[in-house]
This record gives sequence, C-alpha cells and structure tokens, in this order.
Amino acid sequence: MDPAKLLDILGNENRRKIIQLLANRPCYVSEISGRLGVGPKAIISHLNLLEQAGLIEYSVDEQRRKYFNIANNMRLEVLVSPYSYTVALHDIALDREKKGEPPAAEEKEASAREESSFFFLKLNSRLQELKTRQEELAQMQQRLQVEYTELMDRCLESIEELAKNSVECELLFELLKSETTLAALCYNLRLHPSIINANLLDLSERGFIEYSIKNNQHYWKLCETGVENK
Amino acid sequence: MDPAKLLDILGNENRRKIIQLLANRPCYVSEISGRLGVGPKAIISHLNLLEQAGLIEYSVDEQRRKYFNIANNMRLEVLVSPYSYTVALHDIALDREKKGEPPAAEEKEASAREESSFFFLKLNSRLQELKTRQEELAQMQQRLQVEYTELMDRCLESIEELAKNSVECELLFELLKSETTLAALCYNLRLHPSIINANLLDLSERGFIEYSIKNNQHYWKLCETGVENK
Repeated sequence: MDPAKLLDILGNENRRKIIQLLANRPCYVSEISGRLGVGPKAIISHLNLLEQAGLIEYSVDEQRRKYFNIANNMRLEVLVSPYSYTVALHDIALDREKKGEPPAAEEKEASAREESSFFFLKLNSRLQELKTRQEELAQMQQRLQVEYTELMDRCLESIEELAKNSVECELLFELLKSETTLAALCYNLRLHPSIINANLLDLSERGFIEYSIKNNQHYWKLCETGVENK
Repeated sequence: MDPAKLLDILGNENRRKIIQLLANRPCYVSEISGRLGVGPKAIISHLNLLEQAGLIEYSVDEQRRKYFNIANNMRLEVLVSPYSYTVALHDIALDREKKGEPPAAEEKEASAREESSFFFLKLNSRLQELKTRQEELAQMQQRLQVEYTELMDRCLESIEELAKNSVECELLFELLKSETTLAALCYNLRLHPSIINANLLDLSERGFIEYSIKNNQHYWKLCETGVENK
C-alpha cells in the first residue's frame, strides 16, 4: 500500500474507530454502526474504502452476515523533525496459510509432553516478552532521534563556519541529508545550474565533497573520512 | 500532542506537502503557495492549523517576511494487524537552548586539534552511522511484529482447544491482549456481568487466570508461569 493512502485513511476519526473495533474482533455492519453511533450507510462507505485499500476483508457466516476483519499487518512510521520528514510503511507479510502445516518437531514434542493449558500459558509469557522488547526498541529509536537532531544542530553550526557563502551553506546542508544530483539541487535550491556547479567544484577542490557515477548520473556527496587524505 | 490530532493533520495531502517542504528548509507563504500550486489563502489556513498544533513556528526576517519551520521532533508509529491497532506518538524533547553552552571538554579538544573542516566531516560520518542504526532498528521491529502475529495465531489455536465455550474463548482472547477489569470485559463483549463473572471464576479455578487489586479494582490477567504450581 502507498503510505500516503494509509495516511488518508487514518486521517478520518470514524475510520480509525472502525479499525480499532476490527482489531479487537471481527464485526458486522450493524454492530459497527451501533458502537460508533454512525449510520450504516456511512459505515458501509468507510468499509468499502478500507476493503479497496486491502486493509480489511470479510467472511460470511451461516446467517449470511458479513464479518469484517483486518487483513493486513503493517507498521507505519512517521518522523517529523526540523531537518526531516519521512514516512515509511512496512508491509509485514503474513504467511498465515502455513496454519495447516504440521507443527515443528520441537513444538510437537512440547505439546505431547506438556498439558496444552501449560503450553498456552507459555505462549502467553513469550507474547509478553515480545511486548516488552517492542517497547525497548521504541525507546532506542527515540534516543537515536534525539542524538540525530543534536548532531544535525552541530553540523549546521559547523557548516556556517566553513561555508564561504550562502550557496555553499545550502549545498552542504542538502548533501548532509543525502547524496544527490545537480538537477535535484537546482530544483530544490531554485538556483541556476552554473551557479551550483561552480560552488560544487569549489567545495570539491577544498576536499569537502566528491562525486560517484551511478546510472550515468553524477551523484554528489560529502567526503567520507577526511580532508587529510587529499 | 494527541496522536489523533497528528493523524488528522497528516490525513491531508497538502499539509503533508507543506511539512515536507518545511523539513527541507524554512519557507514563507508565497514560496509554499508557488511550490504546491495552491492559493495562498488555503496555505495560510493550513499553516495556522499546523501552528496551533505546535508542529510549526515562524521567525520574521528583515523584510518582515514570516519564515515557517518545523518546531517539533516526533515519531508517530501506527501498528495495524489482525489482533491489534496501536497508535503511539513519541514527542522527542529537544533541548536546543543548550546550544549556547560551552562544548564538552572532549569536543573542545577535538576542535582545537583538528581542522574544523575535518571535524565537520567526522560529524557527518557519525550522522550516516545513525541512519544505518535507525534502519537496523526498523528491521528488528519488523521481525518482532512478524513473530508477534505468528505467536498470536498459535495462542488462538490453543485457546480454541482449551475453552469450554465461546464466552471462555472471548475472555481468554481479551486477557491475552492485556489485563483488564470486569467492567471493561462487559463493555467489550456486551455480556451481562453475571455471565462473565461465572466464566472468570471457572477459568481461575482451572488455573488459567488470576486477579490483582489496583486502585480498588480487580484486574484479571492470565497466570504468569503455569498451571503446575496450583
């Protein structure tokens, strides 16, 4: 799924509530409508949208009632900071058809040896461990982003000291974010290629930047280790 | 910020584009309007909304032009899976006022010893390391979510074997997700307290669940290690 599409979907409060409900248990239209206090027509149109996006699916029970459930497993991550805005959507493939396969040897043995009730509680312990691990990872990511932003601040101070003029300032800032081409720099900085090129060459002579060629294009980037090798 | 508010904000394509632009560099209204091909009135109303939410702020230059920039540093994480829907917003406090402080001893020494240009390229190397680390963490989180969902699948199979009836099934499923109160169970399952209570007591006697008391409320949860201690 396109991450922009998911953000469009999640931008609506009622759709978020529907997803929340379905993540709890499969539901049918009038159930959702009752819970949310929203007419069934509106609910159906939200459900259609969610289904088209592949986010939900349904199964039909004996009373021909459509039960909707979440079809997908994904993680959306949005980072907003003074120096970056990134949206990443990780679709996590679920190989749920495996269910029918015989359990792994280890597991089979375990089931035979232990009471199934004990086995269930063991699964649950593992589940709680995973939750803790998930929280730890989230905290690590947070610390990383703090360090990233602080480092960016220091890089910008450093750039201001080094740059001869404001164009160099902007170029170094762009290259700090990622390697890039002349064309992209012209577009982003709204400056004529000749101006940018002259500054790139100067920076390159002073040992700050270098280029590599990929797919017949010049990609400029900051030099990797240092000036002293020049 | 309330994560729902951020999702509302990000649900609009033009607002996403504005954030994208400002994460690149501070911009003023007519610049944004030109880039997006959207009238200045609409841009101003989006900017007001973003500013009220604390996501952006502005500074005024000599020509009295308002330059808007991203004021915040945060990470939004949305997990959607058949068994869970969680939205987490991590506000990452930036202690940017520190800037004025003298640099740490190590850093001071480094600046003195090395050319400032070399120092800048070293900062950049560290920045690239952080980016790599960020990607690694994202991958770890992904593997974790796969394992989580597979484990949930197995727990559900296990529940179906263990439960005497469908109410028990639903109760064990709810408790798998988190510990909870009788009242919350009644609300979520839409069942009379007497039915739920009878089933909870039965499950508790069979050693599956137990309660603890917090803030004068009974919280039910799955037993931690196993049945064999009973």
